Amino acid sequence: MKKSKLTQLLNIQYPIIQAPMAGGITTTELVAAVSNHGGLGFIGAGYMSPEQLRNQIQEIKQLTQKNFGVNLFVPTTYVVLEEEVNFANHALQSIRSSLGLPGTTNIDIPKCENSFASFHEQIKVVMEENISVCSFTFGIPSQEVITRLKENNTILIGTGTTVREAMEIEKAGMDMVVVQGSEAGGHRGNFSSEDQEGLIGLMSLIPQVFDTVNIPVIAAGGIADGRGLLASICLGAQAAQIGTAFLTCVESGAHPVYKQAISNSSGDDTVLTRAFSGKWARGINNRFITEMQEHEWELPEFPVQNALTHAIRKQASSKNNQDYMSLWSGQSPRLAKEQTVEELIRNIMSEAKGINKRMAD
Amino acid sequence: MKKSKLTQLLNIQYPIIQAPMAGGITTTELVAAVSNHGGLGFIGAGYMSPEQLRNQIQEIKQLTQKNFGVNLFVPTTYVVLEEEVNFANHALQSIRSSLGLPGTTNIDIPKCENSFASFHEQIKVVMEENISVCSFTFGIPSQEVITRLKENNTILIGTGTTVREAMEIEKAGMDMVVVQGSEAGGHRGNFSSEDQEGLIGLMSLIPQVFDTVNIPVIAAGGIADGRGLLASICLGAQAAQIGTAFLTCVESGAHPVYKQAISNSSGDDTVLTRAFSGKWARGINNRFITEMQEHEWELPEFPVQNALTHAIRKQASSKNNQDYMSLWSGQSPRLAKEQTVEELIRNIMSEAKGINKRMAD
Repeated sequence: MKKSKLTQLLNIQYPIIQAPMAGGITTTELVAAVSNHGGLGFIGAGYMSPEQLRNQIQEIKQLTQKNFGVNLFVPTTYVVLEEEVNFANHALQSIRSSLGLPGTTNIDIPKCENSFASFHEQIKVVMEENISVCSFTFGIPSQEVITRLKENNTILIGTGTTVREAMEIEKAGMDMVVVQGSEAGGHRGNFSSEDQEGLIGLMSLIPQVFDTVNIPVIAAGGIADGRGLLASICLGAQAAQIGTAFLTCVESGAHPVYKQAISNSSGDDTVLTRAFSGKWARGINNRFITEMQEHEWELPEFPVQNALTHAIRKQASSKNNQDYMSLWSGQSPRLAKEQTVEELIRNIMSEAKGINKRMAD
Repeated sequence: MKKSKLTQLLNIQYPIIQAPMAGGITTTELVAAVSNHGGLGFIGAGYMSPEQLRNQIQEIKQLTQKNFGVNLFVPTTYVVLEEEVNFANHALQSIRSSLGLPGTTNIDIPKCENSFASFHEQIKVVMEENISVCSFTFGIPSQEVITRLKENNTILIGTGTTVREAMEIEKAGMDMVVVQGSEAGGHRGNFSSEDQEGLIGLMSLIPQVFDTVNIPVIAAGGIADGRGLLASICLGAQAAQIGTAFLTCVESGAHPVYKQAISNSSGDDTVLTRAFSGKWARGINNRFITEMQEHEWELPEFPVQNALTHAIRKQASSKNNQDYMSLWSGQSPRLAKEQTVEELIRNIMSEAKGINKRMAD
């Protein structure tokens, strides 16, 4: 069965999707620049309040007439176990005090029911603002949410890490699937698989998913230039979702120290950790990850651990101290450069064209 | 700097290298068929005695005039700790008895000095038989060995899993480097990196290595068809080393139950384990891996653990019992088919050509 053409469906010039990186990276300038230069910009709205999301959408609309997307975290039920929280606080104690932070006062652990309520408010904003593309991470939204968004003509994109998750995403009625390879930076998007099962490299994941589902496949993980884009297309993807290479762009909101850590990387030094948030995520190895490694398996789950480390990450950022910041990065940090979004997209497309021409000769 | 042309250097028609799978898979028929049909066949000689190696080389020479390669394991020093061996024997006890095996009698743990002596005998065979291509896994041989082989005009190929290892391989004077992505089946080839650092997907590993070394790059891991070959070439590799897809070929020596386990795979069910050999390796998850998982970190190192599980694997094979066999596989088992080597190579090349043509249009 022939898959629909992705660039037409998304109404974009190039098969380049800016990964929805949460936590202040996807600035209004970044998202608008990506869409204005022929790709699809994306708001990483996972941690945003409905008001913040609405404000940013309206700001971006001032800067571009083009399509852009919103990515949301699908909430899951979780329990806050006092014992686990105490354990984590104990493990974090020396780091907190070395950063001059007070003990465990003022730590606001979000309530599970609130994250569900906030998600529904975010969906409402997406609909009211007539956002044309909405993607999801950490799970599949309910059929009721899917139906409402589809009635509003929103294109829905799921994120999966295995053949099985891609099949579930298709079955739920999503229009496209982002396959997140083990190369990807930031949080792992696995939602039904065991952790290790969800760590499949794109060389294996793209063709096996392509052969199994009928919806268009978007490749994510370690793609940073024209070589990666073209390779993804050879493997069966119709577009590449690019994170780290947009993160180091001039327009991104990433901290300068964070950008610097990526450009200093050997290319071999990203690791998976759950010490920052309670969910496995890939970033450049640093002191926080190393110090917390022995406790890794006993820490509370997401988003509880994330709340417990919030002040640490914030304080480290304000002190330009990369030892305790979360330096999320895919496995290709050596390919990420400091440049404008316009230059990055132009370089990707001209490199891909060059390889294509060379191979045809 | 322009890299030398790999197919010319290796004197092969297609950029397809059959992965040197050890343990009886690379039969004389398999190796000869790969070389006869335009690729480079490879003897996985890691576990072979010098006599076995010489015999197989001479058999293959009866079936082909073409080049083929020999892969050797570079020995490293290890110590046999009685405490660890006792621990492992205890952990393996119930599996041994369920297979009707006697206790721990007749277990022959190889002496460290013998593995060095055997390696030097293997090198002698490679030289005396004028093998034109020799590849190495688990490390870089000594400068003395490298010099001797080069004086004999042997093309030397190292295997690495990180940018750093690829640089070391180039620096040692190797002619080419196999970059083993995290997708790859069987044993991990990391030799200077931490385990997690050595798990880089090909989408990231190939271009970062390509940008760093001047020797030709061969991609290994999860490549099973024309899509993977072409993607590897887009990323900067000059050839693909293909394992699992040759393993399921008619000519391979893999056990029928093993081939069946690969064709039954969901594509999501390969895992890394060190329970079979003491070294991390990727295979289809089964009962042995699951049962041994809790002991994984306390087992002896390679090749001690390998010796301790030898009888278990052998007995399981003879009973057609896949629960206790090592079912090594890359992350693309869904792409591996039962076919002849001739069909596999023809399919890879015609698929790659088709994609190339479609992309040029």
